[in-house]
Amino acid sequence: MALIVQKFGGTSVGSPERIASVAKKAATFREKGHSLVIVVSAMSGETNRLLALAHEINPNPEPRELDVLLATGEQVTIALLSIAIAKYHLPVRSYTGAQARIRTDSAYSKARIQNIDTKQIFHDLNLGRIVVVAGFQGIDDKGDITTLGRGGSDTTAVALAAALKADECQIYTDVDGVYTTDPRVVPEARRLNSLAYEEMLELASLGAKVLQIRSVEFASKYNVPLRVLSSFEENGEGTIITAETERMEEPLISGIAFNRDEAKLTILGVPNEPGVAYRILEPIAGANIEVDVIIQNVGQDGTTDFTFTVHRNDYQRALRILKDTSVQLKAREVIGDDNIAKVSLVGVGMRSHAGIASTMFRILAEEKVNIQMISTSEIKISVVIDEKYLEASIQALHTAFNLAKPTG
Amino acid sequence: MALIVQKFGGTSVGSPERIASVAKKAATFREKGHSLVIVVSAMSGETNRLLALAHEINPNPEPRELDVLLATGEQVTIALLSIAIAKYHLPVRSYTGAQARIRTDSAYSKARIQNIDTKQIFHDLNLGRIVVVAGFQGIDDKGDITTLGRGGSDTTAVALAAALKADECQIYTDVDGVYTTDPRVVPEARRLNSLAYEEMLELASLGAKVLQIRSVEFASKYNVPLRVLSSFEENGEGTIITAETERMEEPLISGIAFNRDEAKLTILGVPNEPGVAYRILEPIAGANIEVDVIIQNVGQDGTTDFTFTVHRNDYQRALRILKDTSVQLKAREVIGDDNIAKVSLVGVGMRSHAGIASTMFRILAEEKVNIQMISTSEIKISVVIDEKYLEASIQALHTAFNLAKPTG
Repeated sequence: MALIVQKFGGTSVGSPERIASVAKKAATFREKGHSLVIVVSAMSGETNRLLALAHEINPNPEPRELDVLLATGEQVTIALLSIAIAKYHLPVRSYTGAQARIRTDSAYSKARIQNIDTKQIFHDLNLGRIVVVAGFQGIDDKGDITTLGRGGSDTTAVALAAALKADECQIYTDVDGVYTTDPRVVPEARRLNSLAYEEMLELASLGAKVLQIRSVEFASKYNVPLRVLSSFEENGEGTIITAETERMEEPLISGIAFNRDEAKLTILGVPNEPGVAYRILEPIAGANIEVDVIIQNVGQDGTTDFTFTVHRNDYQRALRILKDTSVQLKAREVIGDDNIAKVSLVGVGMRSHAGIASTMFRILAEEKVNIQMISTSEIKISVVIDEKYLEASIQALHTAFNLAKPTG
Repeated sequence: MALIVQKFGGTSVGSPERIASVAKKAATFREKGHSLVIVVSAMSGETNRLLALAHEINPNPEPRELDVLLATGEQVTIALLSIAIAKYHLPVRSYTGAQARIRTDSAYSKARIQNIDTKQIFHDLNLGRIVVVAGFQGIDDKGDITTLGRGGSDTTAVALAAALKADECQIYTDVDGVYTTDPRVVPEARRLNSLAYEEMLELASLGAKVLQIRSVEFASKYNVPLRVLSSFEENGEGTIITAETERMEEPLISGIAFNRDEAKLTILGVPNEPGVAYRILEPIAGANIEVDVIIQNVGQDGTTDFTFTVHRNDYQRALRILKDTSVQLKAREVIGDDNIAKVSLVGVGMRSHAGIASTMFRILAEEKVNIQMISTSEIKISVVIDEKYLEASIQALHTAFNLAKPTG
């Protein structure tokens, strides 16, 4: 008899058939006696269709009106899903963001939820109704429609779960959970039963794009148990993401994230004096280029070497900027490499176990992989290596840390 | 410096190009210093697309949810039109029915407007903003989205004009006004500059389908001047529909309406006793057949003849029912004719001028047209004739009553 918030994304409600299948899932769930709030996105393709209409009329549409336009996408889905659920003779009520009283600030297209008045929803749940809420949207204090921006429906679901003090927030996607690493690289990769919020944040930002970072942060802040499940599978357990303390036994490593979207730039022989890091990175940031890993080493003869990574698409631009900077700073040389990959071990277990890093480095050495950069945080170790060793490295690490074996 | 409410239907906003052209019209209008509230329908085809989606999921969609679904159609249009208007650097605000505080009862799919809180709209108009409102929709006192049913956008426009005490409510359509009769039948048919509400009601119900009856009734009740205009024409004057008293000079006849959708049925030699009309029409009504003209004549030998017209599609069904009734009532005979047409002269001038009917009958006699039925009201005379004389009769009447000559 739990209270569950479920969220279905655009692909899961992308056609009348898929909507019918979500309704069937809801009916099965309701029959077990659980209370159910369902958050839905716009049907896949709908948001792009609406955006194309707007841009055909005006290349710079008014943000307020764009939100009025886009909000119709989820409104269509809540109505259709409610119509589908009613076929099972179950009482159901749909609500737009405004009707669900999801109050946001007025930052059109990237609004933030401020509070949710749950009175009406609790009233419906008490009457045994399934409540269907439009994700991605809210209303500001002037009564204007707002949208939450990327990943907004996940955020709506988590915010509702927090406000309703739900037992669980279930995010249905096209994968059946979070894996120890990408199964396309390591066939033995295993679905994780559970994960800590922080681990999910590290895994998400490093490439395992299952959940929007913002919704994980939100869930963590309000301690909402978050479960990732497949919308195309019956009876899957998915992966539950909770606070660290709730887990019975910590595995050393939860997963291996990686990406090959980055390039590395190094400026050699920079005078080692205060303000140098700022003078190197400021022009890069000024060109709107995001920097990921940053490393500075003291070199010989009072100079220093400074290395950072950027997205591969920004590599040539960053290289030109860095060469200009190099002239101004009288640096010795600028070198770069866009055939690199980053591999990261993630796990809260690292905190209490020494030797993870040295094991990682040993395994890579045995594979004859040269480590070009190292960067560590409390629950993550990242190395930058030559791209051609990526698969072999991940496979070796996955085996060495026993990730294929269930840890509970 | 007038306050004008304009309404554009689905065809007028059916594509990004058409929406751009409505925006241009609005900009021109605003530049003249007028205050402007624009009511729009869903883009043509959109409502049917949404209905098809709903029916694919559930042949009997929940009325509440169907309204949530359909209301998105106009919401898309208000956003797109506002985005188009903003291109002219004019301040603009869109409102859904709920945001415009159009309060209705809870009769989903055929809700009736109860009141409109105009505070926000007046506030916007005072700031020089163009206000764009979704037609066809409102909100009930529980906060549920409702739709107004057929012709709902016209009703929204008239209701807003009444609530705002607008100087005029302009209904843009694909014709440039109301004509003395159908120009396809009488090429000399002339656009009327002005018309009384009652005349429009008679002309509309008799076949000149330009405006929804409900919105004309509404305009009449609140005395809102209503103007019919073409959305595809610049600087057209259209036809203004007002209370009778506001017109300087009454023409005898405003227009000639007609239809050929009806069939005539007669039951002869019915005993002339109380309750006979009821016993004849009750089974017809019970079969959901609508009756238009009804005439009863006293016959010879204490019996009576009873004639009525129905839609031609219902003719065979009505004939079978009437034959059954005839047996029960011991009537002499049942006869019918589905090659008939109805011609109606409409004009408030009739009230104060005798002899209109006799002129009409003389003209038809000169054309050798036999009149089969006559029915009159205060501002209308209808005759039923053989369908083959329809065009000739209308042309002769149009000429005889000088309808081609402007009357002001």
